[in-house]
This record gives sequence, C-alpha cells and structure tokens, in this order.
Amino acid sequence: MPDEFETIARLFRPLATAPEARGLADDVAVLPSRPGLDLVLTKDAVVDGVHFLPDDPPDLVARKLLRVNLSDLAAKGAQPFGYLLAVAWPERFGWKARAAFAHGLEQDQAAYGLSLLGGDTVSTPGPFTASATLLGWAPQGRVPSRAGAQPGDRLFVTGTVGDGWLGLQAAQGGLERLGREAVDILTMRYRLPEPRLDLGPAIAEVATATADVSDGLLADAAHIASASGVRLELALEAAPLSPEAAAWLAGEDALEGRLALCTGGDDYQILFTAPPGRAPEGTTPIGRVVQGEGLAVTYQDRPVQPDRLGWRHA
Amino acid sequence: MPDEFETIARLFRPLATAPEARGLADDVAVLPSRPGLDLVLTKDAVVDGVHFLPDDPPDLVARKLLRVNLSDLAAKGAQPFGYLLAVAWPERFGWKARAAFAHGLEQDQAAYGLSLLGGDTVSTPGPFTASATLLGWAPQGRVPSRAGAQPGDRLFVTGTVGDGWLGLQAAQGGLERLGREAVDILTMRYRLPEPRLDLGPAIAEVATATADVSDGLLADAAHIASASGVRLELALEAAPLSPEAAAWLAGEDALEGRLALCTGGDDYQILFTAPPGRAPEGTTPIGRVVQGEGLAVTYQDRPVQPDRLGWRHA
Repeated sequence: MPDEFETIARLFRPLATAPEARGLADDVAVLPSRPGLDLVLTKDAVVDGVHFLPDDPPDLVARKLLRVNLSDLAAKGAQPFGYLLAVAWPERFGWKARAAFAHGLEQDQAAYGLSLLGGDTVSTPGPFTASATLLGWAPQGRVPSRAGAQPGDRLFVTGTVGDGWLGLQAAQGGLERLGREAVDILTMRYRLPEPRLDLGPAIAEVATATADVSDGLLADAAHIASASGVRLELALEAAPLSPEAAAWLAGEDALEGRLALCTGGDDYQILFTAPPGRAPEGTTPIGRVVQGEGLAVTYQDRPVQPDRLGWRHA
Repeated sequence: MPDEFETIARLFRPLATAPEARGLADDVAVLPSRPGLDLVLTKDAVVDGVHFLPDDPPDLVARKLLRVNLSDLAAKGAQPFGYLLAVAWPERFGWKARAAFAHGLEQDQAAYGLSLLGGDTVSTPGPFTASATLLGWAPQGRVPSRAGAQPGDRLFVTGTVGDGWLGLQAAQGGLERLGREAVDILTMRYRLPEPRLDLGPAIAEVATATADVSDGLLADAAHIASASGVRLELALEAAPLSPEAAAWLAGEDALEGRLALCTGGDDYQILFTAPPGRAPEGTTPIGRVVQGEGLAVTYQDRPVQPDRLGWRHA
C-alpha cells in the first residue's frame, strides 16, 4: 500500500504548478481576489462502480472527473484555472494505478490550463472515491443562472445529445452492430466528454438561463423551466445527433429512440435560453420559452405524453 | 434508500443560506471578489472506520468534518464563511442518519457563521465518505505559510496537546480509570475539536510560520522546520496539558507519556513561530528557532533520541 506522504510528494506536488497552491506544503491554497471578476466554484464526486465502470482506466477516470466539473464551469461562462482534489484509494489501487490517475490529471491540466491547488488523499476499505472542487473566473455580476428564461426566448443546445448514453452501452459491448469505429467514438464520448469551454463565454454573454446537460436533455430543460417559472416547448426532432447516434436511431423506433437519447444524460453540452437571433454559431435551436410552467415535448408537432418522458419530476 | 434530489431539497437547501449558493439550484456557487482580501481554501476528506468510529453519531461526524477544515483556516488567520460538500452515502445511511448528518452541519454553521455553498451527494456500495471544501477570507498578502520561521523566533502552541489522542482511547472505553467526567471531556475533545478561530487572526498578524496540529505536535513542528529551512528546538515538558491529560500522565512513564501526547495528533491547535514577545495571550512558548535543520526535542534539558519521536520523517 503506497504511503500518502509519498503519493503527495511524488505524484501530486508536480501538478501544483500555480503559486496559489503553495506547493501543497501549507494545508491551504491562497487566492488573491481579482477585482471585476467573480469566482465560480463547483464540486462533483465519483464512486467506482456507480459513476464509472470498474475496469475503466484510472487516467480516464481522473480526466472525466475534471471534465464533468469543467462542464459546470463552461455552462456559466467561467474560465477554469485550478482545482482541489480529495481521493480515497482502495487497497487494490497500488502505485501503478495511482500514477496512472495522476497522469490523467496531468494530461487534462495541460489541455485546460489547470493547476492542482490542494486537497486530501486517504485510504478506504471501500471503492475508489474522488471529488474535485473546480474554480474558474467569470465577468463580475454576469454569471447566468437557471432562473432567467423569459417568454419569447428560444431554447438552444450545443453539440449533439445522446452520445454519452450510447457510449456507456458501447463500453459495455452492447453496440457491436454499429461497427468498431462507431463503438470507439461513442465509448470515448462516454469516457472523455468534452466540456464546452469553447462556447461557454459567448453563450454566457447572451443567455438568459444556462445549464450543462448532465441529467439528460429533457430533465435539464425541466430544471430551467422550473427555476425560471416559465414553460419550455422542446421539439424532439430538433435535438442534434451525431452520425453515430443517427446510425443507432435508424435501427430503433424513431420516437422511443429519440426519447432515449434525450433522457440518457452524460452529454456535458450546454443548454440555454436566449432572445431570438442572439445564440452564437455552433448551437442548435430546439425549442422556445412561453408563459406557463413545465416542459412540453413534441415530436413532429404532436405532443409526447409526459409519462413517457422518463425523467424525474423533481 | 432516500433519493438524492429529495435529500438535497429537504436537508441541504435549507443550509444554503448565502446568496452565493444560488439556492443549490445552479450547479455552481458564484463568489464576488473582495478587493483587499485573499480567499483561503482547504479540503479534507473522511471515511467511516478510517477517520471516525463506525458508531460515531452522524451529527458529530458532520461537525468534525467541518471543524478539521476550519482548523486549517484558523491556522492561516482566515475568517471562514462557507463550504462545498461531497457526500457518498452507503445503503445503511437512511433518512434518519442523513437528517442527523444535516443537523450536525446546521449546528456548526450556526456556531461558525457558515453557509453551505454547493457540492454533490451520491450513493456508494462502500463506507460513508465525505469531503468538505472550506472557504475563508484573510487580509491580502498576509496569509502565513509554514516556510517563514527565522532563527531567533520562538515556537508557540495554543491550548493543550494530546487530548484528541486520549479522547480516541476514551471513546473506545480504554480510560475508565480516569473517571466518567474525564472520559466524557476527552471523548468530546476527540469527536468535537474546537478550531482556534478565536486566536487565528491575532496569530497570523505576528507569526512567521503557522500550521494546525493535526498529525501530532512533533510531526507538525518538523514540517515547519523542513519548510522553513531552520532547526526547531522543542522542550517536551513545556507542551501544555489539560487537567485530564495531566491525570493520565501521572499513571505513565513521564517521558514515554509525554511523547505519546505530543505525537498522537488530532489536536487542532495552532503551532506557530514568532519573534520573542509577539505571541498573543493564550499561547504557550514551547521552544525556539535556530540555524540548522530538523527538529531537536529535549526533556528536562536532555536530548530525546530521534528514533523515539515516533513521527514520520517525511
């Protein structure tokens, strides 16, 4: 069983590149205020066997942990810069697995301009468990919430939906019929989602409400409707699909298949409302905001029964 | 098994009292910068059976989780104001245990002026695991590190040492001979340490180096010596003891007993170096800073062999 002091000294200290981290020698990170900016914070946890598959490689687990948190920052238009990390290692997580986990962190630190800032490593008799607290800066007083959607706004989403959900099945060997290349692409969409930090700031400038799509497109749209006190109308056929998801859908009942793609979750795209004509390039209109409450879903102009939408009415 | 949405809505949303928390409805907390102040962040994790006893009441586990983090902020002179929380519930943690955990958070939020700001709750097939990311403000550019101790400084500690270590034994039924009252006092010192937020700011104003005593007085003194590139001389007999620890010590070999109290850890006092005459009231001088390296421990003016000090030379 590797020692925690040695784990920190050899694997984590090299990742603490920012001066705010104080070389992980000080139990705390110290972050000077930045006048004109707000600090945006988010924290998500993952558990082996619950949020990832037991044989997922540790480096990809590390990168997905960072990315699901980065997705929350992206949806708020924040520019990420660092994170605190807590890891509970099970006994089977020896030096090699720990080093692989740290290597994954290093890769995505480089990809996203992050520094490790602090945290804690402990041992556990249970499954591998980790949480990351991600920090980003955003223009002061201009971080969109979920609560600002206005009647007359349009509803948009970035990228494509359903790939994460298909990717989980692909990773478990359930989509062989789509061919090796599609299986590989979808598996990576599940294991290594790409947070939309590219579009986040431009969206935050014009959006009235934003959320990242983690629970599923329909569930997250319902959250915006509820928080904003408005009704969202969403056209299922407008939800953008990847070529791989379209190929999968061709072998399914069209409505049932679309519902599955739009409720599966793990998309890590940005869902947002904005006045007509204001959405940046690279986003797809999928509906509109009207007076009322709740989410109204249509497929080819016909209403879909709410009991078929398959998301929690929280 | 309680639902996570319901857990958040019923137990955690009432704890998100600060506007920065956005009612836990937004996946992120948004914190305006405060010109003239630095944000101090720390994150610690606890695992059932590793960091607390399996039958420790959930409300006390919650409070200790906050307090061990608050102790890190106290040692840096920061004024705490909020935290993000990640909790992994095992199946046996039903509604009643979750409510007790939230009640413990509520109690210490009131005691320390905290708001829950965000986080994540998940289920786990393993033991109860939680991490907290605590946030505090401190005067800009004046947060002491571990690395500033200077030859000529004195070494000080707040409160008393060894009570947490004795308290763990008391909680396990090992100190009956000290009497019910002492057992109760020591058990509470273990379960509910009191972070020295009262003394932290005054210490930070004068200290050249600070650390909270979590690993043990000698280990944390060695960390300061190493980080500062100096030698610390520490007189074991000067380490302040509670009446309960003194009563325990009376039945032990004096040197071995003192070594145990000074290496046990879980004290959550503040250890610091400062120029002579500068330490605030309520702190005890226990040694001095000289040129050289490492920690030199004496007992009644005789050196104690380093191999008896019982801490990791990390």
